[in-house]
This record gives sequence, structure tokens and C-alpha cells, in this order.
Amino acid sequence: MNSAKKPIKGYTNIRVRYAETDTMGILHHAVYPVYFEEGRTELMRDYNFSYDEMEKKGVILPVYSVEVKYLKPAYYDNLLRLETELEELKGVRIRFAYKLFTEKNELMATGAVSLIFTNADSFKPMRPPLWFKEIFGLE
Amino acid sequence: MNSAKKPIKGYTNIRVRYAETDTMGILHHAVYPVYFEEGRTELMRDYNFSYDEMEKKGVILPVYSVEVKYLKPAYYDNLLRLETELEELKGVRIRFAYKLFTEKNELMATGAVSLIFTNADSFKPMRPPLWFKEIFGLE
Amino acid sequence: MNSAKKPIKGYTNIRVRYAETDTMGILHHAVYPVYFEEGRTELMRDYNFSYDEMEKKGVILPVYSVEVKYLKPAYYDNLLRLETELEELKGVRIRFAYKLFTEKNELMATGAVSLIFTNADSFKPMRPPLWFKEIFGLE
Amino acid sequence: MNSAKKPIKGYTNIRVRYAETDTMGILHHAVYPVYFEEGRTELMRDYNFSYDEMEKKGVILPVYSVEVKYLKPAYYDNLLRLETELEELKGVRIRFAYKLFTEKNELMATGAVSLIFTNADSFKPMRPPLWFKEIFGLE
Repeated sequence: MNSAKKPIKGYTNIRVRYAETDTMGILHHAVYPVYFEEGRTELMRDYNFSYDEMEKKGVILPVYSVEVKYLKPAYYDNLLRLETELEELKGVRIRFAYKLFTEKNELMATGAVSLIFTNADSFKPMRPPLWFKEIFGLE
Repeated sequence: MNSAKKPIKGYTNIRVRYAETDTMGILHHAVYPVYFEEGRTELMRDYNFSYDEMEKKGVILPVYSVEVKYLKPAYYDNLLRLETELEELKGVRIRFAYKLFTEKNELMATGAVSLIFTNADSFKPMRPPLWFKEIFGLE
Repeated sequence: MNSAKKPIKGYTNIRVRYAETDTMGILHHAVYPVYFEEGRTELMRDYNFSYDEMEKKGVILPVYSVEVKYLKPAYYDNLLRLETELEELKGVRIRFAYKLFTEKNELMATGAVSLIFTNADSFKPMRPPLWFKEIFGLE
Repeated sequence: MNSAKKPIKGYTNIRVRYAETDTMGILHHAVYPVYFEEGRTELMRDYNFSYDEMEKKGVILPVYSVEVKYLKPAYYDNLLRLETELEELKGVRIRFAYKLFTEKNELMATGAVSLIFTNADSFKPMRPPLWFKEIFGLE
């Protein structure tokens, strides 16, 4: 649970590229974390926050953990819908939860990604900047 | 635990490609599952088993779940060592565990991947073929 | 030159993903052909043609040649604009020309991709299907 | 032609990863430039030169042009052989030529990549460092 009053959630549409499929004819499993990353970018944009600017201010967010459960395959040219939720901000760590839906709105994958606020120069963990919390209404 | 007498384990050396790094200057997190996949291929080859041939016999292995924990970053041109262990074969599912080591032999990531034996025509789960079990000394 | 009366051209917006950047902090050069492929998909969609359906009818389009000239770099989160033009259909070959523009509408890359109409079963070259030509107004 | 007495050439073996294949069941065309990049890295290593170290000295090599001709497809788990030749060093530009061979030693692709010696801070073109030329016996 985030400490904000309401869910911090966003949606992104992503179309499966041919290059992202494999010999089985399905979306390759290693592409899902790339989609999740796009989901984070777009969620942040919804809040007028730019990950790019944060990096330029010397704060980076390397990934600490990734989990994905694959429930249904996707195919070339499918238009998927990704739900990204900022689930928790705790200490130096931030956690996002994901639901990926097929064109027919069936749940095709779930996932979670944790990242660590990190000083770009020292590569050491750091508390999230105040302005980061304020943007999302977190304390 | 697999039901075989001894661990089914193998090692693969993988060099970080430039294309696999990102703006942070580190190996991108979505590449790890690709390395794990290469680890599976090589472990199977150690046992004179070819995943490719299994596919040609109509048995495919789509991924059911992926977990990765990222402990240390890797950089372009680093020569990593990947340990792949066939951890469990249970029902239609097979599970591999991973340890990834830096050039200095420090643990840089751990992971696990579960896959489901699947009929290539019907895309339905199926029991692993007998010959698969025999090759690895599993019952 | 295509043999149709007017240019067969389309535009696609593509946002640079973090995973697509490299240690130099720029969009990696091997991603451009992936964008071009997306451009082809979208151009075809503009003409109510689905590459996916063509594949299901047993016609595939493996790439025969790729050329890219890189004029300006792009960065994470940049929103690029891709111009895709069906330039020529000649014998078994089809050729697309590309212009990629930065957010500020500066030309950042040009390219061309040739593909070969191929029978999916025999993997042999074949004439483009009549319905393909009709859709694009080509003879 | 390079200005050195003999060809500056090297060979690298590369195995096709599952993730690198597509719905057609073949090695995706956008992966070839990634292989070429690996070829450059390995050719440089043969000459005890590290691209990584050059970058740390503030010299980067963004790609200026890529050309690939695809003659035969490759499949998952194929062990390919890549020939990389430093073809020309002229002004700020360096050009590599490639030949990619199948397991059966058939020519499956040819290519060329030009890169520009660039100052990492200013992103401006620059003459190749003297020590670079000396390593390869170029004037």
C-alpha cells in the first residue's frame, strides 16, 4: 500500500512488435519487463514527472527485483493494455505492480518491479527526493 | 529438489554486449532472462539434449514465471559466469534456478524460471516426454 | 518509384524506451530497423492491410537488405516521428524508404529496407499476391 | 583498404539465442548489427585494444551507417561464424566489413558499419587518437 489517499495508477497501450516475438510465434517473455518500464515512464508522465529529468538531477533508479507470471500468450500486432500501479514507497525502495491485458481484456500477465533510489555519482542507495514524494502525494 | 541422485547443474560464460547496456551504463535488467534462457540451452546441451529437437517433436516450453534479484550491476564487456540448475520437475512444470557471477566471482544476481511442457499444436499443457526424464535421470 | 499514381506514405510516432538506449546514453543503432519494421506495420494498417493476415495466408516477407544513415542521436523518452514510404515493388521484391525525425522535426536518420515475397512453406521467393497489389493501387 | 601492411581481420563464433528469433522462426534481421558490434569488440580484443578503455579516455564511436545484405536465414541454436575486417580508417571515420557464415560455412550475410571518432564530452567528431592507429599499425 502506498501512503497516499488513493491509488497511483495509470494505463498504457502497447502494440507487440514483430521483433519481440520468437520461434513459438509469441511475445518473448523477456520483453515484458521492457513493457513494464514503459508503463513506469507513462505513469510518471501522467503525474507531470519525468524520469529523464530526475536522472539529470543525479538520481537514478536501478531495478532491484522483477517478478512476472505469464498467464496467456500474446502475438505480433496485438494491442495490449498495461496497468501500472505505484504500490509502495518504503525507505530507499519503490515498488510497482503490473497487470497486462489482451485485446479482449483478458488478464495475460501480472508482475512487480522494485527499484532503488540511487545516487548517480556514488551508485549508493539514497532516500527519494522530497519533490518526488510531493508529486505523487506520498509522505 | 529434483528427484535425481545429484544436482543437474551447468555453467555458461556470457559477455555483456554494448547493445545490452543502457543510459545508466549498466547491463539492462530485461537482458537477464535472455541470459537465463541461454543457460538452459547450454545445460541441456551438456546432457546431449537439444531444446530445438524437442520443439521439432512438437513439445514447446513457454515460460510460466520469472523472478530476478539484482545485487550488483554489470558493465559492457564484462565476462559473466552463469550457473543454471534444473531445480524441479513437477507435473507439467519444470523449474530452473540461476546464479549469475561477476568477473571477480561475486554473486551479482539470482533468479528462477518456471516453464510448462506444452503441446505445440494445441498449446495445451502436457506431461514431459519420458525421454526427457530419462536424459536427466529424473523419474 | 512505385507504379501507383501517388506516394504510398505514412507516419508513426515512436517513443524511445530506456531499454533501447546504451552506455553512450543514446538510442542504440540496432533499434532503428525495429522502428522501421513498426513503420511498415503501421503503413500497412493505414491501407487496411494486415501483415499478420498475409502471414496466415502463407506469404512471409523476410528482409533482404537494410541500410541506415545516422545523422543525429536520440535519447530516452524522445518522441520520434517516422516517415515510411513504399518506394518500389519490383518482381519478388518490395522496398521501403524511411526518414526519422526528432521531436524538433530535425532529420535524424534515413534508411531503406528491401524484403522478398516468400512462400512460408517452401521458403522460396514468389510474386506478390494480386490482392496485395490491389490494396496499394499497384500494378 | 586500410593503410596497414596486411588485413586487420578477426573471427568470432556466435550462437543464435531463442530471444533473437521471430515468428518466422528465423534470426531477426535487427540482431545482425548487434552481432557486428560483438565482432568489433572481439577484433579489438585480438589486438589487445579495449573499446571500453577508449570510452573511459573520453573517445566514443557512435555509428554513422549500417548496411546488411541477408542471403540465408539462421535458426535458434545455430553456431555462426562472423568475420570482421577493419576495412578503412579515413579522417574521423572508421569502416568495418562483415561476413557472416552458417554452421556449414555458407555465406549467410554481408555487411558494413561506419563509425565516427567522437569526443565524449562535446559529442563532436575528432581525429582517431594516435595510440589507436599505432595499435593497428595504421598511419
